[in-house]
Amino acid sequence: MTESNPDIEISRRRLLGTVGAAGAAGLALGATGGALAHSAFDDSPAGASGSAGSLASLGATQVAFDGEHQAGITTPLQAKGHVLAFDLAPGAGRKEAAALMRRWSDTARLLMAGKPASGADSGIALDAGPSSLTVTFGFGHSFFERTGLTSRRPTALDPLPDFSADRLDAQRSNGDLWVQIGADDGLVAFHALRALQKEAGEAARVRWQMNGFNRSPGATAAPMTARNLMGQIDGTGNPKPAQPDFDKRIFVPAAGPGPAEHAWMGGGSYAVVRRIRMLLDDWDKQSLAQQEQVIGRTKATGAPLTGGTETTKMALDKIGPDGKPVIASNAHARISAPEQNGGAAMLRRPFSFHDGIAADGTPDAGLLFICWQADPLRGFVPVQRKLDRGDALSEFIRHESSGLYAVPPGPRDGEYVGQRLLEG
Amino acid sequence: MTESNPDIEISRRRLLGTVGAAGAAGLALGATGGALAHSAFDDSPAGASGSAGSLASLGATQVAFDGEHQAGITTPLQAKGHVLAFDLAPGAGRKEAAALMRRWSDTARLLMAGKPASGADSGIALDAGPSSLTVTFGFGHSFFERTGLTSRRPTALDPLPDFSADRLDAQRSNGDLWVQIGADDGLVAFHALRALQKEAGEAARVRWQMNGFNRSPGATAAPMTARNLMGQIDGTGNPKPAQPDFDKRIFVPAAGPGPAEHAWMGGGSYAVVRRIRMLLDDWDKQSLAQQEQVIGRTKATGAPLTGGTETTKMALDKIGPDGKPVIASNAHARISAPEQNGGAAMLRRPFSFHDGIAADGTPDAGLLFICWQADPLRGFVPVQRKLDRGDALSEFIRHESSGLYAVPPGPRDGEYVGQRLLEG
Ligand code: HEM
Ligand code: HEM
Repeated sequence: MTESNPDIEISRRRLLGTVGAAGAAGLALGATGGALAHSAFDDSPAGASGSAGSLASLGATQVAFDGEHQAGITTPLQAKGHVLAFDLAPGAGRKEAAALMRRWSDTARLLMAGKPASGADSGIALDAGPSSLTVTFGFGHSFFERTGLTSRRPTALDPLPDFSADRLDAQRSNGDLWVQIGADDGLVAFHALRALQKEAGEAARVRWQMNGFNRSPGATAAPMTARNLMGQIDGTGNPKPAQPDFDKRIFVPAAGPGPAEHAWMGGGSYAVVRRIRMLLDDWDKQSLAQQEQVIGRTKATGAPLTGGTETTKMALDKIGPDGKPVIASNAHARISAPEQNGGAAMLRRPFSFHDGIAADGTPDAGLLFICWQADPLRGFVPVQRKLDRGDALSEFIRHESSGLYAVPPGPRDGEYVGQRLLEG
Repeated sequence: MTESNPDIEISRRRLLGTVGAAGAAGLALGATGGALAHSAFDDSPAGASGSAGSLASLGATQVAFDGEHQAGITTPLQAKGHVLAFDLAPGAGRKEAAALMRRWSDTARLLMAGKPASGADSGIALDAGPSSLTVTFGFGHSFFERTGLTSRRPTALDPLPDFSADRLDAQRSNGDLWVQIGADDGLVAFHALRALQKEAGEAARVRWQMNGFNRSPGATAAPMTARNLMGQIDGTGNPKPAQPDFDKRIFVPAAGPGPAEHAWMGGGSYAVVRRIRMLLDDWDKQSLAQQEQVIGRTKATGAPLTGGTETTKMALDKIGPDGKPVIASNAHARISAPEQNGGAAMLRRPFSFHDGIAADGTPDAGLLFICWQADPLRGFVPVQRKLDRGDALSEFIRHESSGLYAVPPGPRDGEYVGQRLLEG
């Protein structure tokens, strides 16, 4: 099983969520064939014996580092996340960047397999299984100047346009290198963060870092779409890996059209990363009906206001008794829908964030919005342009930082991430 | 089952940790009798049917709000935590404080049962079970002036002495009221935080707030003592609820000696809360042997350097081949051990914290140290006094904030927390 088979991954989660039910328990035990064994679990004297014992345990779930795509894109949301950007150190260039990407890839490969980092491991994740750890690496626009590789920089990485509602902090935006860490255990995630920071050594220094979280597996009786800190079901409209055009929308074609200089991105994806503060005190003052109007879906089930269940298609043309569209013309889910944007689609895979209380006394909390697409100009940009003009949600959110990163394909045969760029 | 029976609680966790093992799965299903059913789980159309289905799910675990002691003291560590202090608003006194404690208790009771807050619930925790949510309330020294109750203030609440290594930020210390929230799901914990803040209304405003985390249940193959962000097993020496003197050490006697004015604290406990930064960059430069000398225990297993396993008693008198004590005279676990402090003992129940990167570029991470005792002058104070003078760990930590709170007993028969003080 590799990370690029999200269906298996998801169904394993589904088992975890209901493993206590008499029927499901047997099912869980019957389904161990696909589980990757984790060394720490098998070696542990206290460990459940055999791989059957590990399957239902959150810690044992392992995601492959190598593969067609990097992990952390179609991997189910994890309970904890860190996203951070690094800048190459003054004087560091292509050679140092290549060495760093090799060290980082080696470390990520070990940690995602539940093994300690080579050298002096801090021990923070000792005893724990990989806990669905993923590490994902990307390159920012400035990386290509720093490494003398501007000729191989895809135009898809051109800076995002300005949006009128942007309140961006440059200190927390962009950066030469981007790292996304996710895991279902907070110590496993922190351990990876520290190990990768250590491997950066003198080659790069942290530019910014953010922490996020999502539901813990098993918190709901059955797995379901995530909620965000506004209380909404968030992720419903995402393209599904089973859909025929999923790969085309999310991943750069492996050997598609486009200039040969950009072939290193075949199988890769572009990540847009935005720290979006939620103005929760204002939001909470709205009635439930007002909140539902803002999105165009009910809060409890995520169903369109035009009826049905979460998965029912929105009836965007439906007119209410007052002669107005039931899903308001400025409703967030209407404006962002692919059919309103020439088919523009992205895979949203966010973390919530909560950094305590801001200077003005309001909660410093919101969405670490991360979306994935084969081309930001046919994903994030047109949708955000439209939202920026007329989204009812705008009043309750504030975009505080922004980054756009080229995320290379997954490594093959002991490659490191980005090798096809840096040595190609 | 009530929260005051930590053994049942812990054994339930133990089952969760190994539920996938063929043997344990049967056991888990057989043990459902004790599980409190959670409404959201039972009502959910997607939910596992019947209470047997809920048991193995992290979300279904429920801790009682009412009881002899408040929840969140002997409750097993949760994956997420918020601790925060409030100050009563100018003009608010005993009456407003009593009304607030009633509102807060009502809300905590609902949320800990997995129900929405009364009034407009934000929906953030919808679908999730209570996920071991606990809410714990305490009163700081200043609360008693604000409410005109100084005659009933226990001397145990006298300000802690200054310690030479203290680098305390007054803005993040003390406060009239203290609230501790813990849950195994981040959205459940955040939901409780927001609901309680909302209930504070005009009566109190947040003074400071901190976020923390621990291992997720199931991250290790079998439940075990927690690790902290230095990578050490942390909690080994804690008094165990099964020990005969546990209650005497941790809880104020229900009808013990002491003046009648303080009877309202019978069954309560005192919490010392310190934000202790770890100087992780310095720590990581030490060799494993050096790190183990600092504590006096091995990092991998937590066993004393004098041999054995985690639970072996430290042989403090043992001399090594170099003529020096094997567990160094300044080792943290030696200096803090009850036998070195006239039996002084406390229950340490911390969260790790990680708030990104500090202004100086080092990680803003460490331990939200929370310890519980019947009397801080026979728990925290003598131990910290000794650590302050000679602890090898001092070099690698920095106490940044401090609070001491009187945590009343658990409420009975629809009481609110603190009612015996505020209406007694
Ligand atoms: C804090 C900020 C945001 C919140 C709280 C939010 C919330 C939501 C919610 C509740 C939905 C409906 C359920 C769903 O389909 O997932 C939704 C849909 C969507 N949002 Fe957002 N959103 C935010 C920002 C953004 C941004 C910045 C973009 C992209 C520019 C975006 C793009 C979309 C898309 C494409 C959909 C799916 C529409 C469909 O296919 O039906 N959202 N969002
Ligand atoms: C970041 C700060 C601290 C760290 C990393 C830390 C770490 C540890 C570790 C690894 C142990 C050995 C395992 C165990 O018994 O739990 C320990 C024991 C202990 N620590 Fe700390 N500690 C810290 C601060 C404190 C403070 C401030 C106090 C109280 C004033 C304290 C009191 C104790 C006690 C009472 C023991 C148990 C000793 C025994 O019974 O054997 N610690 N600590």
